[in-house]
Amino acid sequence: MSEKIVIGVDIGGTAIKVGICSIEGELLHTYEGPTGVEHGSDAVCQNIADYAKLIVEQSSFEWEQVEGVGVGIAGFIDMAQGIVKFSPNLHFRNVPLKTILEEKLGRKVLVNNDANVAALGEAWAGAGRGIADCVCYTLGTGVGGGVIINGRIVEGSRGMAGELGHMSIVPDLEAIQCGCGKMGCLETVSSATGIIRMAKDAVERGDRTSLSFEPNIMAKEVFDAAKAGDEVAIRIVNRAAFYLGKSLAAVAVVLNPQRFIIGGGVSKAGEFLFEQIREVFQKMTPEIAQEGVEIVPAILGNNAGIVGAAGLIIRS
Amino acid sequence: MSEKIVIGVDIGGTAIKVGICSIEGELLHTYEGPTGVEHGSDAVCQNIADYAKLIVEQSSFEWEQVEGVGVGIAGFIDMAQGIVKFSPNLHFRNVPLKTILEEKLGRKVLVNNDANVAALGEAWAGAGRGIADCVCYTLGTGVGGGVIINGRIVEGSRGMAGELGHMSIVPDLEAIQCGCGKMGCLETVSSATGIIRMAKDAVERGDRTSLSFEPNIMAKEVFDAAKAGDEVAIRIVNRAAFYLGKSLAAVAVVLNPQRFIIGGGVSKAGEFLFEQIREVFQKMTPEIAQEGVEIVPAILGNNAGIVGAAGLIIRS
Repeated sequence: MSEKIVIGVDIGGTAIKVGICSIEGELLHTYEGPTGVEHGSDAVCQNIADYAKLIVEQSSFEWEQVEGVGVGIAGFIDMAQGIVKFSPNLHFRNVPLKTILEEKLGRKVLVNNDANVAALGEAWAGAGRGIADCVCYTLGTGVGGGVIINGRIVEGSRGMAGELGHMSIVPDLEAIQCGCGKMGCLETVSSATGIIRMAKDAVERGDRTSLSFEPNIMAKEVFDAAKAGDEVAIRIVNRAAFYLGKSLAAVAVVLNPQRFIIGGGVSKAGEFLFEQIREVFQKMTPEIAQEGVEIVPAILGNNAGIVGAAGLIIRS
Repeated sequence: MSEKIVIGVDIGGTAIKVGICSIEGELLHTYEGPTGVEHGSDAVCQNIADYAKLIVEQSSFEWEQVEGVGVGIAGFIDMAQGIVKFSPNLHFRNVPLKTILEEKLGRKVLVNNDANVAALGEAWAGAGRGIADCVCYTLGTGVGGGVIINGRIVEGSRGMAGELGHMSIVPDLEAIQCGCGKMGCLETVSSATGIIRMAKDAVERGDRTSLSFEPNIMAKEVFDAAKAGDEVAIRIVNRAAFYLGKSLAAVAVVLNPQRFIIGGGVSKAGEFLFEQIREVFQKMTPEIAQEGVEIVPAILGNNAGIVGAAGLIIRS
């Protein structure tokens, strides 16, 4: 019973997910409880501590075996200090989460943003296991990302490394404004939101397509229509894949990572999407910078957050 | 006299430059001798060792103070093993430079490519002194680069990190083929070669310009004409600066480095060029990813190579 374990905490707007991992990154137990945003930040911090204690109690491990607790959270984080500067979902402003939790738990606590933590999860114990340098994309409502070099998260000077969705990549003539305020970001074409927008635009323009203008059209329907041969849907998927492949090619000459890992809802389109991304990547990347480089799907799904949070303790 | 020193070696096709640096990166002595490519790789290796011994003899230091010897060389390097896989200038193929020099010198030897080494020089002891994360561009015949994270060179899985000149960045409609075989690389528009090509194209097309089609037109003449108000030259400089700024914006969301350092012959155009790069960068980078980010000229000039080579010993 002297084996060490690490705890990962993934704080969402409605639920806090907690997991126990071995120091090799195996997810052994999980627990989920309400976040309790409505009761304020003190209550949320108490919940995190309670759930962390609880999951260990419910397991065959002892608290003494806990090496540390890693926390992933959406928002702007001062990672060195472990302060949540601003988290819109949780209504946190300047909450010294690391200090609060270290006091409550008596263990080392590290805090990082959810995208970095998910990337670390995949790199450490998912599709990047055993690989030193990985770059991860998460294609969801937006396009998130994380950069792992020598097994560790690259944070950047203001914690803004890995903001891959905001690479300005669509040429001016075709660019639309992104939520970040800039024009032509990758997120405007390769996120679920971007794909849905392009589908709606096509329907509104009256393009001949099997897609219909439903209020709740999903990216999956666009992929299904493309797979079934709908030319408008094919063009939309091509465009999403083209700019993704182009952004991977840009990252390849900057970092030459061994593996690109792509996850999130949109990535569920599978090989249909991945083949197109690889084709563009091969076309745009110098031969020597694509040798041995793999583009693979993420494998941890929603658990990437808790696994990566636990990984903060091992890979810091 | 017990103070430690490091030796940096910059191997070029015609001359080998050697320098003694303090462990803080101050360049104390330099020496330059012929490379001797015509006598074969054994002779070149012997020259390196001889010049390293000689520079210490000529100084007030003793060989015992030498902590290690770093070497920068153009070509494909297996950095972990210190093997020069291929260096066209030197006619080296699979030369185990690290092992050969460690035997001859009795000191730790590290080998890296010239672009990475120059970037490390600037980051360690030049325009990036004191900064953990820097990305360096060298605008010369081509566009070279190097990425420094946490004070160390990012090499990439096959040593191809920092190949910033081969970011595919010019849209297809305007792209030309790069020397690497791909279309629209940054190098095709932002290197001296790219600028000269655009000038020649303009003259050939008969554009109204003060530029003349001399066989040896230099990038500097294009900049001088632009500064004097020549509209064709201004358009060419704008274009070179636009794609540079766009590539910096792409790197900013991947790595969020604190400082971009730009050197090489083209960078001598000075603030006229830098102002344009900064303007594009500001336009294309999300506010939060440009906060505190500086775009500055390199300061070590031709010494970046020897200083950075010496830096390999300190920053490994």
